[in-house]
Amino acid sequence: MSSKRIFLSENEMPTKWYNLLADLPEQLPPPLHPGTGQPIGPDDLAPIFPMSLIAQEMSPERWTEIPDPIREALAIWRPSPLVRATGLEKALKTPARIYYKDESHSPPGSHKPNTAVAQAFYNKEAGVKRLVTETGAGQWGSSLAFACSLFDLECKVYMVKVSYQQKPYRRSMMHVWGGSVTPSPSEETEAGRQILAADPDCPGSLGIAISEAVEAAVKDDEAKYSLGSVLNHVLLHQTIIGLEAEKQMKIAGDSPDIVIGCVGGGSNYAGLAFPFLRRKIAGQDIRFVASEPCCCPTMSRGQYRYDFGDTTKLTPLIKMYTLGHSFIPPGIHAGGLRYHGMAPAVSLAIKLGLIEPVAYHQLECFDAAKLFAATEGTIPAPETAHAIRAAIIEAEKCRETGEEKCILFNFSGHGICDLGAYDKYFAGELSDFDYPQKKIEEAIAELPEID
Amino acid sequence: MSSKRIFLSENEMPTKWYNLLADLPEQLPPPLHPGTGQPIGPDDLAPIFPMSLIAQEMSPERWTEIPDPIREALAIWRPSPLVRATGLEKALKTPARIYYKDESHSPPGSHKPNTAVAQAFYNKEAGVKRLVTETGAGQWGSSLAFACSLFDLECKVYMVKVSYQQKPYRRSMMHVWGGSVTPSPSEETEAGRQILAADPDCPGSLGIAISEAVEAAVKDDEAKYSLGSVLNHVLLHQTIIGLEAEKQMKIAGDSPDIVIGCVGGGSNYAGLAFPFLRRKIAGQDIRFVASEPCCCPTMSRGQYRYDFGDTTKLTPLIKMYTLGHSFIPPGIHAGGLRYHGMAPAVSLAIKLGLIEPVAYHQLECFDAAKLFAATEGTIPAPETAHAIRAAIIEAEKCRETGEEKCILFNFSGHGICDLGAYDKYFAGELSDFDYPQKKIEEAIAELPEID
Repeated sequence: MSSKRIFLSENEMPTKWYNLLADLPEQLPPPLHPGTGQPIGPDDLAPIFPMSLIAQEMSPERWTEIPDPIREALAIWRPSPLVRATGLEKALKTPARIYYKDESHSPPGSHKPNTAVAQAFYNKEAGVKRLVTETGAGQWGSSLAFACSLFDLECKVYMVKVSYQQKPYRRSMMHVWGGSVTPSPSEETEAGRQILAADPDCPGSLGIAISEAVEAAVKDDEAKYSLGSVLNHVLLHQTIIGLEAEKQMKIAGDSPDIVIGCVGGGSNYAGLAFPFLRRKIAGQDIRFVASEPCCCPTMSRGQYRYDFGDTTKLTPLIKMYTLGHSFIPPGIHAGGLRYHGMAPAVSLAIKLGLIEPVAYHQLECFDAAKLFAATEGTIPAPETAHAIRAAIIEAEKCRETGEEKCILFNFSGHGICDLGAYDKYFAGELSDFDYPQKKIEEAIAELPEID
Repeated sequence: MSSKRIFLSENEMPTKWYNLLADLPEQLPPPLHPGTGQPIGPDDLAPIFPMSLIAQEMSPERWTEIPDPIREALAIWRPSPLVRATGLEKALKTPARIYYKDESHSPPGSHKPNTAVAQAFYNKEAGVKRLVTETGAGQWGSSLAFACSLFDLECKVYMVKVSYQQKPYRRSMMHVWGGSVTPSPSEETEAGRQILAADPDCPGSLGIAISEAVEAAVKDDEAKYSLGSVLNHVLLHQTIIGLEAEKQMKIAGDSPDIVIGCVGGGSNYAGLAFPFLRRKIAGQDIRFVASEPCCCPTMSRGQYRYDFGDTTKLTPLIKMYTLGHSFIPPGIHAGGLRYHGMAPAVSLAIKLGLIEPVAYHQLECFDAAKLFAATEGTIPAPETAHAIRAAIIEAEKCRETGEEKCILFNFSGHGICDLGAYDKYFAGELSDFDYPQKKIEEAIAELPEID
């Protein structure tokens, strides 16, 4: 029998990260200072990030060496397997070959620690004592807590309140790894108090939690801030996914025609897609499909504009697809996909026509997840279910046309901490939701006019 | 750097299971009919198991071929990695080399599906429509539901009531894979009704749940019963763990001096240990340490006697270490270690002095689990924490003596569905418990006198 899972040995783990910006045909518009509106420099970011990460954030270099201590920490679960979804193919009766890169075997259960261990390492090296961050579904917060435990740093997490309530197990994971967790909005920060004064029952959002975490980090001399998606250096660290997948697809004797992922801030998708996107830029015929929820349609219904990364306008302005920083999405279970903005690098690739956005409803994604669990075993995170839904649609197209396409998607994380959401799905308590166009337009109308 | 994880490729997966009974210096005492007290034959087991599994249960053969469809199902997560616990070694400042076989990457998160897929396959082959079983912590029930989904069988699970309440996520996992779950004792069976009549608040036990599952299977022509531990054929299927570990230890250029595991019914430990136990029987100097909880001290404080496998005396009598079939252990969080009996093959190996039992308290095991999570990443199941505790104690002995021993233990499962137990541990709500000697003696005094 041929191999279902393709492994790389530890010494085949990539030694460098890949920077798509070196190959994109257009330069990324610069981030702007939230006060002056002028392009920011390294010094503007120094209060929140160590210089090594700022250098990566602004680097035009194609390749960045991965330091040995990071590779050693990654070796706890990397290289991750590339899996042929034979069970799913059979169930779909498709001539397509479906592969997924399985990022669910990290201790926190997702791709997030790929950047968490890197950020923890660089901060430790810079003498930082504690990292402050925000988390939506808890994937990122638990990953940073895990990474901080490996590098002996303290970790403080502002967790979006609705997820804090829905996902107690993610909160517990952070505790096991020594992290401290505060539901956001909280009374601990100016930003939180401001939000709570306006709406005491506010369910929170990533944008608000970012405001709180940045504020807390800036006010603490021994702390820095850490972000789990969106930024260039985060996407850079995630490219290890796609770089491994390239080697593994070669071992499989195959090459993807379609590269699929779910997209919240953009980092898991960029991680898989960017190394392959090089090939498209060089002329190869590959489609890139980025899947988001209908109730947070940043790419498919947002605009490519300068906007703040957070709700209370503390962060630099970045050019990205956005629903507006005042956008608060409903408390769907794919908490990791509830962000008003989008990684600038992913946004530019969409604008250049290199990546196609698609949006799916919650119920069809749970249907896809259920089929995946029955045929491939692993229970997907609700976020990951959006990638699976997109992959199934492409595989079903192949069944109609008879085309034997090669589909590769990122299995960004398992859903074992999301079983409460599955319970609701099976009980028929979940429904679909399209965000009202009028509300999106209102939020976008508030954006500063910058070109 | 040297490899932290050692993988085998799919074609290096063992093609045969190993049967320790072929090499033990004494024959296993035969199981006896619960009514007549006479040794049972295959026909006695035919109402509850398919003939292929009965043949394996009674087989004297050293090796049994693994059918290809089982190997294909196992390939979803096997071969599993052998991991060098470098982080834990460093934290313990021990000269010992610690390895663990990581069984946590199966979709249900434990070693249990190793036998679940085999049992599902043989039952499907025999024309069975549905499997009925019991589960303690839910590891076994979720594994059988998973396996049934792969082989298109229905799955019905009686879940020990206290776990049903404590572990809602395990219950949800069974639902995702299409299983149906009933808290036990239930009103659905004679056995359950009898228990509830005597004690309406009975928290349940594995012994009771076995009674219910066996009864339900026997009364249903299209169903068979499935057991997740104890029996010879279950242990046989689990030996793939140790057979893989043998190959991987060879790749590591090492050989275990001490083989450790936690023990409930005995199957995960037997799975790792039996292939290595051959070597001890052949004269090699290896220690075998089996770790159980102080509050269910089957091996360390029970007796080697004929006893029933269940509470209401429906199963055959088997010779094993037992606390008595009327023993109901307290609702500790290591639910998988709450069984009054012990696999007959493990029991005989203990009686022959081949395996040393040890017992640990709950709190020291959670301390060990916390250290493991901080240094190795993965959060252990409370059951697995008993193996880690034993490994740490052996590694600490090496620190005292300076001996560079090689310690191998089985990481039987992750604790992501047990985070509620961790919450209680961190909140200081857990305490230690030694089962009163008088109660054990009372339960054992009820046993039939058979030699």
